[in-house]
Amino acid sequence: MPVQQDIDELVGRARDGVPRAVARLISLVEDAHPRVREIAHALTPYTGNARIVGLTGPPGVGKSTSTSALLTALRAAGKRVGVLAIDPSSPFSGGALLGDRIRMTEHAVDPGVFIRSMATRGHLGGLAWATPQAVRVLDAAGFDVILIETVGVGQSEVDVVRLADTTVVLLAPGMGDGIQAAKAGVLEIADVFVVNKADREGAEATVHDLKQMISLVRRELRGPSWRQPIVRTVASRGQGVEDFVRALEEHHEWLVSRDELPRRRAARARDEIEAIAVRQLRSELVDLRDGDRLAELAERVAVRELDPFAAADELIGDLRS
Amino acid sequence: MPVQQDIDELVGRARDGVPRAVARLISLVEDAHPRVREIAHALTPYTGNARIVGLTGPPGVGKSTSTSALLTALRAAGKRVGVLAIDPSSPFSGGALLGDRIRMTEHAVDPGVFIRSMATRGHLGGLAWATPQAVRVLDAAGFDVILIETVGVGQSEVDVVRLADTTVVLLAPGMGDGIQAAKAGVLEIADVFVVNKADREGAEATVHDLKQMISLVRRELRGPSWRQPIVRTVASRGQGVEDFVRALEEHHEWLVSRDELPRRRAARARDEIEAIAVRQLRSELVDLRDGDRLAELAERVAVRELDPFAAADELIGDLRS
Repeated sequence: MPVQQDIDELVGRARDGVPRAVARLISLVEDAHPRVREIAHALTPYTGNARIVGLTGPPGVGKSTSTSALLTALRAAGKRVGVLAIDPSSPFSGGALLGDRIRMTEHAVDPGVFIRSMATRGHLGGLAWATPQAVRVLDAAGFDVILIETVGVGQSEVDVVRLADTTVVLLAPGMGDGIQAAKAGVLEIADVFVVNKADREGAEATVHDLKQMISLVRRELRGPSWRQPIVRTVASRGQGVEDFVRALEEHHEWLVSRDELPRRRAARARDEIEAIAVRQLRSELVDLRDGDRLAELAERVAVRELDPFAAADELIGDLRS
Repeated sequence: MPVQQDIDELVGRARDGVPRAVARLISLVEDAHPRVREIAHALTPYTGNARIVGLTGPPGVGKSTSTSALLTALRAAGKRVGVLAIDPSSPFSGGALLGDRIRMTEHAVDPGVFIRSMATRGHLGGLAWATPQAVRVLDAAGFDVILIETVGVGQSEVDVVRLADTTVVLLAPGMGDGIQAAKAGVLEIADVFVVNKADREGAEATVHDLKQMISLVRRELRGPSWRQPIVRTVASRGQGVEDFVRALEEHHEWLVSRDELPRRRAARARDEIEAIAVRQLRSELVDLRDGDRLAELAERVAVRELDPFAAADELIGDLRS
């Protein structure tokens, strides 16, 4: 269990680019180590510089190949890149094809890259808790770009996307139904669309469908007028990846020019503060539960001296005293 | 929206056996109507009389047929019976065979029977919240026995079983693997085992396996020495149902003689108080979220004036003030 000095030293080594220090810090914060607040406090002064890019989309669109291709391009541009892989089919978390794994193994020995797979554990708060903590570590450790790769289903993934400055939704040809199914949520969260496997039959139809959906929605929407670009890629051959990087760059510039970046980061902070507060309150309740107070109240409810709502009020009163 | 007078009148009519009043009260409490605490308060003096029996088991064991047969037997003995059906494959919730549905339709016109299917909704607290509330209504309305039928998988179902005075685990022949898979949890929670479809091949093997598992576990366990009986039934023909009723009766007598009943009811009250307290705290946090306070804290976190843990502390401090 680290003391303050150890925490400062660990943060220092993480900032010096020592991968094991970064990994150790992420492990400590994602498991909500008792000293997680001291760790967060020590990291905070060094944060706020990384660009956070979320990548999501239905299974089968080549999400991990795209992440890998993007990673290669960003490295070629001299950026240090952290990857948080939440998709269980991702090569980072061990679920993908051999070719992808080998490509990732290359990245894994590059000191400018840090890859972490986040387990979708069922514990309290889950990814909504752990991911922002891990992002803070990578941000403080000086990574220029943090890619959060997640499969586009479920509430926890939506929560994760809310972390990003820029959200990329990936699609592929021949998933017409997929687009229809996804459209409700996807159009709201996407800043950049990527149609991968753009050399396949049906790619132009997918782009066309997407354009129609965007224009339909645009008429209904007000607010900041970012025009979601649609980038065509063949990630397995690296085609279109410069366009992809350029779209990310343009979105970042737009965020900055419109004061959208602080707005998004404040929204992210709201989510995180709330997640921490809920977790904190629950753990205080658990402490009370382990003590005698709840048992005493329960006895009184069992004999109908008290109803459970009045008992809950007394329990909460204890928390507040 | 009911005022106090309406609540008192509704409780009065429910106690007079008016099914619509019972149904209305359950709807109000399961949706956490703003006046749920007044309703609970009005109901509490009339509670504590019903015997609460949980029935669980893997799909395919004839759980709904068994519930129906048990219901018939209890009615024949003059008991008023409430049923909370949580199993999505239950005839009560509309997922079963025509024959079962017809049998249930019979019960549905019997004024001594009240059947309610509980939706496994995803909202906060879910069944762990709603089920004890519904149990309180049925208890206060004077039902002698409350059957809670639930499929034996998942945490929410385990939570529901914790409500019962007596928990029945149903099994059937030819589910050897099912028993193995279920055994970890099942042996701890079962007060009574029922092997249904006992006329089928393999029934004796199932009983034998069960006996072995029970004796293995018994050696490891301390505590009150209730010997879990194994009842054989063919619920579809009503065979063995008297034995089933007798086993429930014997377990109830044992609970009373050993002072186990108040212990179990206190444990149930603990769960309920905690569920109510967590829900209450969360809703207060949501109120704060909707206000300006969280937004203000989030701004400060976004510019790194504050780390999110310190912000969460301030938020919780507001709750307590």
